[in-house]
Amino acid sequence: MSGFRSHMDRALEEARAAASRGEVPVGAVVVGPDGRVVAAAGNRTRELSDPTAHAEVLALRAACAAAGSERLPGHDLYVTLEPCPMCAGAISFARIARVYYGAEDPKSGGVAHGARVFSHSQCHHAPEVYDGIGAAEAARLLKGFFEGRRDG
Amino acid sequence: MSGFRSHMDRALEEARAAASRGEVPVGAVVVGPDGRVVAAAGNRTRELSDPTAHAEVLALRAACAAAGSERLPGHDLYVTLEPCPMCAGAISFARIARVYYGAEDPKSGGVAHGARVFSHSQCHHAPEVYDGIGAAEAARLLKGFFEGRRDG
Repeated sequence: MSGFRSHMDRALEEARAAASRGEVPVGAVVVGPDGRVVAAAGNRTRELSDPTAHAEVLALRAACAAAGSERLPGHDLYVTLEPCPMCAGAISFARIARVYYGAEDPKSGGVAHGARVFSHSQCHHAPEVYDGIGAAEAARLLKGFFEGRRDG
Repeated sequence: MSGFRSHMDRALEEARAAASRGEVPVGAVVVGPDGRVVAAAGNRTRELSDPTAHAEVLALRAACAAAGSERLPGHDLYVTLEPCPMCAGAISFARIARVYYGAEDPKSGGVAHGARVFSHSQCHHAPEVYDGIGAAEAARLLKGFFEGRRDG
């Protein structure tokens, strides 16, 4: 299995774990320049009463804390869903080199939709972006979660 | 002194305290529906090795933790500088009612410039926005900080 697919599988595991905690199932992984996972997280906004506790923000904060730096040059981020504007901003500030994301998010995304945070001169570092990796499974998890919530 | 000016003065105090810690001098205050300050913070990205530790995010996280909720309906946020896209996203998720900001930020802002986070259908809650409050002092603090850094 290629590296980027196995990292997205790890992000999908985090998304499933988030769903099992009653959180929106999104997961993220930060990978260091040597290809090793340095942080992984799923959404915890409800558990932590923290609107900023998206998977990407939690993974970035953990990776930065471990590195002792607010910047992570040469690091990549894998996330199961297109980042929102908040997370896109955090990704830019952390100087993440590449973002791999799964499902697109036309409703709330901020990379390929809406605010398109990386596409303005006010964004001082834009990562390379690769979309659609593991998208079907990421979308299935989200669809199942929101359908279950409507039924519940 | 009217309420909104005194709240911005408190945010400016936080900005000055941030400068004294070697952080970019931006300060923020969250005010509850009864007009009382429920959280105040200045930038701590360097101290915390956390690229998300902008004044707004820290103030919102503290206010949410105190409220035990990821949403703060009826609350206002005062910040000395136009929020970036990350902070604008966090403000929207927290359901802040009104944002009062000081200096505009054509270089990195995400409210009136660039990503204009509140101006897209992907943003599901847009606060009322009031700009230019205490702007001269906020801009003076930032200018002094960056000039000092160039000299140092």
